[in-house]
Amino acid sequence: MSLLAVGTVAFDDIETPKGRAEGVVGGACTYISLAASYFTAPVRIVSVVGDDFPEDALEHLRGRGVDLEGLQIKQGEKSFFWAGRYHSNFNSRDTLDTQLNVLADFNPILPESYRHSEYLMLGNLVPALQMRVLDQLAHRPKLVVLDTMNFWMDIAMDDLKAVLGKVDVLTINDEEARQLSEEHSLLKAAQVIHEMGPKTLIIKKGEHGALLFHQGEIFFAPALPLAEVIDPTGAGDTFAGGFIGWLAKTDDLSFANIKRAVIYGSAMASFCVEAFSIERLKTLTPAMIQTRVRQFADLVHFQL
Amino acid sequence: MSLLAVGTVAFDDIETPKGRAEGVVGGACTYISLAASYFTAPVRIVSVVGDDFPEDALEHLRGRGVDLEGLQIKQGEKSFFWAGRYHSNFNSRDTLDTQLNVLADFNPILPESYRHSEYLMLGNLVPALQMRVLDQLAHRPKLVVLDTMNFWMDIAMDDLKAVLGKVDVLTINDEEARQLSEEHSLLKAAQVIHEMGPKTLIIKKGEHGALLFHQGEIFFAPALPLAEVIDPTGAGDTFAGGFIGWLAKTDDLSFANIKRAVIYGSAMASFCVEAFSIERLKTLTPAMIQTRVRQFADLVHFQL
Repeated sequence: MSLLAVGTVAFDDIETPKGRAEGVVGGACTYISLAASYFTAPVRIVSVVGDDFPEDALEHLRGRGVDLEGLQIKQGEKSFFWAGRYHSNFNSRDTLDTQLNVLADFNPILPESYRHSEYLMLGNLVPALQMRVLDQLAHRPKLVVLDTMNFWMDIAMDDLKAVLGKVDVLTINDEEARQLSEEHSLLKAAQVIHEMGPKTLIIKKGEHGALLFHQGEIFFAPALPLAEVIDPTGAGDTFAGGFIGWLAKTDDLSFANIKRAVIYGSAMASFCVEAFSIERLKTLTPAMIQTRVRQFADLVHFQL
Repeated sequence: MSLLAVGTVAFDDIETPKGRAEGVVGGACTYISLAASYFTAPVRIVSVVGDDFPEDALEHLRGRGVDLEGLQIKQGEKSFFWAGRYHSNFNSRDTLDTQLNVLADFNPILPESYRHSEYLMLGNLVPALQMRVLDQLAHRPKLVVLDTMNFWMDIAMDDLKAVLGKVDVLTINDEEARQLSEEHSLLKAAQVIHEMGPKTLIIKKGEHGALLFHQGEIFFAPALPLAEVIDPTGAGDTFAGGFIGWLAKTDDLSFANIKRAVIYGSAMASFCVEAFSIERLKTLTPAMIQTRVRQFADLVHFQL
């Protein structure tokens, strides 16, 4: 099934306890589309870069079947840039620099060929822009997934709530779920968030796994204990890409298959953190992904 | 199978975001023995209290089949007292007061009838005292489980390492595993800790579940999302009591059964946090416990 992904395509400077990477390719839309490309085609993106963005990075995306018709390339302008440093526990980070550049006046425009996309991933972005994408679709997609962050809850809550009213699945982390719902218990938080619109909520907890709340049912997916985490950047976007990529591939929105999608998303995220930037996501094979989802199954298997 | 539990029996003052409880019954040995009493008998305890400890609390333990012959009651002295306050996220707490009282010169003495116990739970206590209990046993138990905390790593690491060399299972939290092993990756931390003695390691992560490392195998048990957490005090001890209680009941040390024991321990801990002190642990039934472990199984169930 066709999948449309919206979000940033960017340069990152990243510092983690395991090293540094400067001027590397990043951005939510990049991670989402790469992860999803292992499952479904076409993957279409709507985003913006400057003329400084490397052609070989775009070529790699095209090579993985990503349709770049909706990627605006602004001549004479610079791509969105983010610099961050992770703390020793990898669970928190400081933003050192943000240069919006082309993102400052980004107006997402859907090419005609995108308007009938069946699955839609609204990556983390200004909520009003997420809404503008929804408004351009010829019909409602089979599934709309939205990712967001605390920053938009702080400065654009009304816009965020407006777009939340139009999506099926929300992915956020545990602190964001608590902030959005004003409930500490994640069980109660899920109830509040369901009433805002998303009938499915995925709470991402990083190294502590992910919780899925769907129509009164709960599912917990663990994170795989890894020998070495190099760079958590993009793990949440990679999760989202694997999640919606699996659903677009299988076109099955049953609870059993949404659980499977959470596992595929978790598996893709576990690869993502094993190297800086998108490096690890460039070299996967279907067999490697299958081996890893099997590890997730073994990790939680027990019989009473 | 017979189970011997060693640790504190205490009074607690507890403050959580959900309320306060003053002068309530607590202590590692109390939680361990109560939780284990739902699975196996006899449960023997070695501990110490003053003459201020309420007879009805002791009577409740006796009523649940707990053998108090090894509980020293010091006339004219006061019981161990701890006061603590949990932060709004429940994941961290401040110790407000600690009065050792009878614990200051506690010398654990095993009654003759305890010396052939088959399962041993060394609850959190001075490592040298944990060792003194081991030394009094007529033969090595089938399984020795040790719980400890960062405090002993800070001030008695040599004694802790000596006793670690003699136990089968260690239960600690994730930060303690990192401190003990000097490794950030829990996978690597487990390897280092295995070399210190315990061939089985359980890393307790509170609301994020528990990881079991056993002879090269890994198992992850989730925590159950709860509508309301009232008081986390004793959850780790209750986990340990349920864990070793299940193993003593079944007398099966296969990996499959150790995984089951982690689930039973997690289920008992999930009850513990639903009320202050030991209140919730007083009112359980085998049917309630079975219903809850079934919830744990459902929570992680998926098919690829």
